[in-house]
Amino acid sequence: MTNIKLPVPAGFTISTEVCTYYYANKRRYPKSLAKEVKTALKKVEQAMKAKFGDPKNPLLVSVRSGARASMPGMMDTILNLGLNDSVAEGLIQKTGNPRFVYDSYRRFVQMYGDVVLGLKPTHKDEIDPFEEIIETRKRSKGVHLDTDLTADDMKDLVALFKSAIREKTGNEFPDNPMDQLWGAIGAVFGSWNNDRAIAYRKMYDIPESWGTAVNVQSMVFGNMGEDSGTGVAFTRDAATGANVFYGEYLMNAQGEDVVAGTRTPLPIAKLKEQNPKIYGELEKIRKILEKHYREMMDVEFTIQQGTLYMLQCRVGKRTAFAAIKIAVDMVGEKLISDREALRRIEPDQLNQLLRPVFDLRQKEAAVHEGRLLAKGLNAGPGAATGRVVFNAPDAEEWAKRGEMVVLTRIETSPEDIRGMDAAVGILTARGGMTSHAALVARQMGKVCVAGCSSLDIDYRSHTMSVNGKVVREGDWISIDGTTGEVIEGKVATRPSEVLEVLIDRTLDQKEAPIYQEYAKVMAWADRYRRLKIRTNADQPDQAANAIAFGAEGIGLCRTEHMFFGEGKIGPMREMILADSEGDRRKALARLLPLQRADFEGIFEVMAGRPVTIRTIDPPLHEFVPHEEPAQRELAAQMGVSYEKVKQRVESLHEFNPMLGFRGCRLGIIFPEITEMQSRAIFEAAANIQLRGIKVEPEIMIPLVGNVKELAHQEAIVRKVAAEVMAEKKVKFKYLVGTMIEIPRGAITADEIAAVAEFFSFGTNDLTQTTLGVSRDDAGRFLIPYVQMEIYPKDPFEVLDRIGVGSLMELAIEKGRGVRPDLKVGICGEHGGDPSSIDFCHLVGNNYVSCSPFRVPIARLAAARAALADEPSKKVKKPAAKRRPGRRK
Amino acid sequence: MTNIKLPVPAGFTISTEVCTYYYANKRRYPKSLAKEVKTALKKVEQAMKAKFGDPKNPLLVSVRSGARASMPGMMDTILNLGLNDSVAEGLIQKTGNPRFVYDSYRRFVQMYGDVVLGLKPTHKDEIDPFEEIIETRKRSKGVHLDTDLTADDMKDLVALFKSAIREKTGNEFPDNPMDQLWGAIGAVFGSWNNDRAIAYRKMYDIPESWGTAVNVQSMVFGNMGEDSGTGVAFTRDAATGANVFYGEYLMNAQGEDVVAGTRTPLPIAKLKEQNPKIYGELEKIRKILEKHYREMMDVEFTIQQGTLYMLQCRVGKRTAFAAIKIAVDMVGEKLISDREALRRIEPDQLNQLLRPVFDLRQKEAAVHEGRLLAKGLNAGPGAATGRVVFNAPDAEEWAKRGEMVVLTRIETSPEDIRGMDAAVGILTARGGMTSHAALVARQMGKVCVAGCSSLDIDYRSHTMSVNGKVVREGDWISIDGTTGEVIEGKVATRPSEVLEVLIDRTLDQKEAPIYQEYAKVMAWADRYRRLKIRTNADQPDQAANAIAFGAEGIGLCRTEHMFFGEGKIGPMREMILADSEGDRRKALARLLPLQRADFEGIFEVMAGRPVTIRTIDPPLHEFVPHEEPAQRELAAQMGVSYEKVKQRVESLHEFNPMLGFRGCRLGIIFPEITEMQSRAIFEAAANIQLRGIKVEPEIMIPLVGNVKELAHQEAIVRKVAAEVMAEKKVKFKYLVGTMIEIPRGAITADEIAAVAEFFSFGTNDLTQTTLGVSRDDAGRFLIPYVQMEIYPKDPFEVLDRIGVGSLMELAIEKGRGVRPDLKVGICGEHGGDPSSIDFCHLVGNNYVSCSPFRVPIARLAAARAALADEPSKKVKKPAAKRRPGRRK
Repeated sequence: MTNIKLPVPAGFTISTEVCTYYYANKRRYPKSLAKEVKTALKKVEQAMKAKFGDPKNPLLVSVRSGARASMPGMMDTILNLGLNDSVAEGLIQKTGNPRFVYDSYRRFVQMYGDVVLGLKPTHKDEIDPFEEIIETRKRSKGVHLDTDLTADDMKDLVALFKSAIREKTGNEFPDNPMDQLWGAIGAVFGSWNNDRAIAYRKMYDIPESWGTAVNVQSMVFGNMGEDSGTGVAFTRDAATGANVFYGEYLMNAQGEDVVAGTRTPLPIAKLKEQNPKIYGELEKIRKILEKHYREMMDVEFTIQQGTLYMLQCRVGKRTAFAAIKIAVDMVGEKLISDREALRRIEPDQLNQLLRPVFDLRQKEAAVHEGRLLAKGLNAGPGAATGRVVFNAPDAEEWAKRGEMVVLTRIETSPEDIRGMDAAVGILTARGGMTSHAALVARQMGKVCVAGCSSLDIDYRSHTMSVNGKVVREGDWISIDGTTGEVIEGKVATRPSEVLEVLIDRTLDQKEAPIYQEYAKVMAWADRYRRLKIRTNADQPDQAANAIAFGAEGIGLCRTEHMFFGEGKIGPMREMILADSEGDRRKALARLLPLQRADFEGIFEVMAGRPVTIRTIDPPLHEFVPHEEPAQRELAAQMGVSYEKVKQRVESLHEFNPMLGFRGCRLGIIFPEITEMQSRAIFEAAANIQLRGIKVEPEIMIPLVGNVKELAHQEAIVRKVAAEVMAEKKVKFKYLVGTMIEIPRGAITADEIAAVAEFFSFGTNDLTQTTLGVSRDDAGRFLIPYVQMEIYPKDPFEVLDRIGVGSLMELAIEKGRGVRPDLKVGICGEHGGDPSSIDFCHLVGNNYVSCSPFRVPIARLAAARAALADEPSKKVKKPAAKRRPGRRK
Repeated sequence: MTNIKLPVPAGFTISTEVCTYYYANKRRYPKSLAKEVKTALKKVEQAMKAKFGDPKNPLLVSVRSGARASMPGMMDTILNLGLNDSVAEGLIQKTGNPRFVYDSYRRFVQMYGDVVLGLKPTHKDEIDPFEEIIETRKRSKGVHLDTDLTADDMKDLVALFKSAIREKTGNEFPDNPMDQLWGAIGAVFGSWNNDRAIAYRKMYDIPESWGTAVNVQSMVFGNMGEDSGTGVAFTRDAATGANVFYGEYLMNAQGEDVVAGTRTPLPIAKLKEQNPKIYGELEKIRKILEKHYREMMDVEFTIQQGTLYMLQCRVGKRTAFAAIKIAVDMVGEKLISDREALRRIEPDQLNQLLRPVFDLRQKEAAVHEGRLLAKGLNAGPGAATGRVVFNAPDAEEWAKRGEMVVLTRIETSPEDIRGMDAAVGILTARGGMTSHAALVARQMGKVCVAGCSSLDIDYRSHTMSVNGKVVREGDWISIDGTTGEVIEGKVATRPSEVLEVLIDRTLDQKEAPIYQEYAKVMAWADRYRRLKIRTNADQPDQAANAIAFGAEGIGLCRTEHMFFGEGKIGPMREMILADSEGDRRKALARLLPLQRADFEGIFEVMAGRPVTIRTIDPPLHEFVPHEEPAQRELAAQMGVSYEKVKQRVESLHEFNPMLGFRGCRLGIIFPEITEMQSRAIFEAAANIQLRGIKVEPEIMIPLVGNVKELAHQEAIVRKVAAEVMAEKKVKFKYLVGTMIEIPRGAITADEIAAVAEFFSFGTNDLTQTTLGVSRDDAGRFLIPYVQMEIYPKDPFEVLDRIGVGSLMELAIEKGRGVRPDLKVGICGEHGGDPSSIDFCHLVGNNYVSCSPFRVPIARLAAARAALADEPSKKVKKPAAKRRPGRRK
């Protein structure tokens, strides 16, 4: 700030060369130093119009270290230097505040006694000797707080401190300010080699030879009367981002008073009335600072007897809304480039623009009233308020009659999908960030709080108890999927402007300033990103949403979710429970037109964008009913005995379904399923293409660990494709590829790439198998693991670069070794996580795929990854640091 | 055989140089060839005392290719060459068997017509023209088999074949034998470049330049009267291995007649009476052959009019008993070295010496009577017969009153262990080769048939139905754990001599010839192997058995099995169901002395051999009761409500327990468990050492995927060790290491080796996670996968070198990079599989660990691995082939 000519309290610096000299010459100073310090001090006295050691008009200084690399708290600082008994008296005259003066004085003696004169605890269990004196005084006065001590107490403390120093160290406290100054300078240089500093330098590879400088700077005081004051301010509104000066101040006060809340500070606008001159100066400074730092700054200032001094400035903290608005505005103001704006917006901050949010004041009130019931995982961001129902059919029924419902389950399963769709929010007691509830909620754009383990849900009585309270069916509840909070009763929500423009189409973009910011950020992101962004979507409406958010294709269309649609679960279950291939084929024949229609709907919406369709993946038991009534119903439908249905369902039981009969294993044992699915896809592709719409299906075979599995399924897919092309007399392009989601798939990626035209990393499963952790069961140890820093983050949220990531790198290296143009994507949940997207960029993915509502976040994250990877003239981090976590 | 002067039908070879010349010179022969062939043929005529083309005393020859590398079936052969109408008539005179002569004649015309004259199908769907003629003839005669055709039919066929050749190819069939011979020679040379041969050479990297030779050899006939005959024999008894000539023969017959079974052949001993001269020659030849080939040979011979000809000899197939006896005997006879003997005994053949076996005749009879009920997995080798019981308590109770029982369960769990111990055999309906039942059975040395899915077991009625039959509690059943067969009723068993000597000590080794063979083989194996062999054992008796079998340490002591012992399951369950650390510690304090006593027992038996003890590994739900009565009982014991026990048990439920809260995760969340276990181990070690017995515990932390997990547990172990040493005033050595059993452990092995003093590959889990396959659920797809050759073998039986193996190699490379003396073992089930042991040898393991009853097999497999890895003067396989399956 001094360099840009802002009024900073005057001071001077004794450079690091002096420190080097000091250590090279048995702790002696260069001969010229004494004179130079004297000259510099004189200049400071002139600038500050006060005199060091002059009781009538005293100048006080601080003495601080100033090393080349920041070493916070490692070295020593002394404030209020220049005080002695007579200077103190003079200062009381000027401030009329003896308590302030003696408090400053005793602080000075305490710091100086500790740092320079060496009165400090000798081992770690000992109490600080100065604090001991203070405590004794407080006890004898019967008070508890330092602030309860009077000016006289403080004055006594100064004397007590000095005699303690004398007694315990044999050192006399220097009354002469110049002696004080030289003592402090020596102590700061000396602190370069204290134990803490040495340890810190070792840890951060800071050379000992650098040395420290010593900064000597004038103290200023805001409590020197009504023409003095102090304040803090932001150069823009930190809450909204509006380009207005924003802050508060107090006259005749110190910084502490603003913070402590004993007096209520005034809004900065008031200063304009009270002291237009100072306010004008501050306004000017605000502009200079923003122009200089090209950032919204947080400043601290003091007015000492009518003169403004800037004490500190740093980049200001802000809300997500403000961060985006400020970045966008600053580009408009030509303060920063679009690149810089992208660097400044954390991708997850975009969530605040995309999701409904609670009325903040209502929510605070609710928490204040004790209505916060519990906290779970923030599995699907946004705010929802609705009435509790405990099962999916109820959710559908209540929603049909216009109720807003929060579907509350111990855990969800694919059977619950229509109920989830009908609900405004989903709340579960079990399951992690990638549990079924969380996955589906994010894909649907539903608010979701998952794994809220303090819910004790009783399905039979349609109630749940939470920390002693009972919530009944129909009671209002509010869930915050951004924070994981569960609140009793209603809390008002407000919708997302971006959604109102893009999805609901209820708002014109001209009337939507927040949407406009969003659109600008997205345009910049698209300018720089190299990764394509796709979406995980199973239904035409999801696909349409994703396109509105900028998705360039579907990276994962899970065919199994389709089976829960209207009219499909019946034949699906018959297929699963069939005794013979013949019966299975009959049921599949009924599914074929239904699946084909699904694909037609998706191809139509995607209009020529690539669509990756995964053949059936989950264990079959997920599709069949497990409760007796539903089993009886199914038996009646199928015309077989209940016992038979029950027994077949039981035979589908698996100990570890995650590692069981699923993925391509299904299609290999029952090739007729893959046949039907391929036929549905290709017939849909042919039909749509015949209607003049381009199609580009990519058939993805899941859970491949051995190229022979893929080759088996590929043969079926290609055979059916050829048949359909011949039957329909139409040609269409398609690809056959695989998911890489078990370690053996990555290890043998060279073999697999000989068959696969693309890889898509299924990092959910790849994380489960590589780490040997079931995401559904991990809660009991993974949460403590993250707390204990065994893993830095939940590896199901943020990709484990060292373990899972190195398998991804290996797979890409091996795969492209065999097939250089291998298309590589990711369709696990990590595809929507910024850090993981950065990794995907670094290892050379072609695209990432995420749930529709994370597409904007992924676009921004991809752009940031590309910018971070740009060869820069001003390299801040060595390039090596940008390489992914490859292990030697 | 010609080279060692055995009477082989005379012949000569036209060498490969001629072939090279032939192709280099537009398919012409060297000028001298005609003359050389003539001379050679004359010599053959002299040797065989017959004349080529002479109707009175005809010599017939075969013409075959003879390439440098065997190319089975790729090139052409012509038999019976030299026949024409007049020669045929002459041969009828000599043999008195017109059908034989005309059958030979028509075969010759057919082969010659095909190979030399080119009458063959023109595309793959066409029927062979000769076969068509035969079929027409059979239809017109109303017969089905070639053998139903008469001599006249055959004669007609010759004529029909010749005219078909003439008609369809325009070629006249040559009547002149010399023309026939040159035609055949040209055809054999020509066949070197037929499509099949070219494809085969490409596939096996055989250079085209090698060319083929042509072998011309006399035909001999055993059906030329009562002084002719034919036979097959083994140079030793192929069933028992006894050193006696063993085989059968028929006079006036062809080889076909011996095989076809239309006439009953005579034992070879009979020939001694019938034709002592020929028998004497054969006896001599038998000795020459064994001396030359140093192997038990299988020979074919023909006597043509009183002259013995050896037609073929090859290494003879034999039973496991015979293989071992022959190898051991041949070392004694100085025919082979001990190295060679080891190479000749397949490790799994040792099982026949170690396990009880069924009386073969009784078993065959049972199968013949239709008593074979089902086939399951051969999970625990040996034969057992006993009465069916359906639960573990019944097994214990029945066994107590002296019954032999076969414990029959849908699947077993750790709760069943004492029942399994009481049974003579274990039969389960579910689970694979590494299911709980299979693992525990092999460790106990129990006969076990697992995963027998056709059993439909009803626990309530104490019955099971199997393929339409009902088996009730108490019914006799016999199970063959070597083949997987399940047989209704009793089948007599006979015990293993080796076990009677080593384990039961009911037989003196001097009276046990089979034991003596075993002991010799083991001594040789120990001479050459480099891998150490340890065992997986949890109890002193298992450990003692393993030592008797030659184990050099314990590679895996599963502490959890101990918890099911007398008096331990109660406190264990209380510990698991405890609400607080305090309650948990109370229960642990009760477990401490019990575990300590367990370890003392094991350390005592192991007497200074290393003992690797794994801290608690399985998910806690495996220890608690899941049925209401047992839960109520436990609640009463613990003095808490049934509901509470029920709820706590339910809270332990996991979706994928294999990937759940287990392994080191338990010890990290409940460090007090690791503390108790460490204390039990070290107090036991101290106590035993104070009694003058050496101890060397190796503490193994399971399921580590991140070095921080290991470091956390290591700190506890080392702290407790130091405490115990101080308390007991004794020093003992110990190691702390880890299992590498999830991919991330292997990938970060360098980090982990910084803490771990040893690695032990848990290849069961490593296979599960690397392949994404749950061993308990794999039956539905893994069995078909092996049938479809997706995996060459069940990867839970034979290590998947490409997938799992490359992670092992990576882990060893990374681990030893950081800690060159890192001790590396394997304790998964693969530690007892010969192919996997070979792999462990190649990648540089220090030891393998297997169940006690596989220790001898592992010793032999380790020796064979070392011998295969020996730098040999006569390299048979290129050294590169011996490298493990490393992927580029």
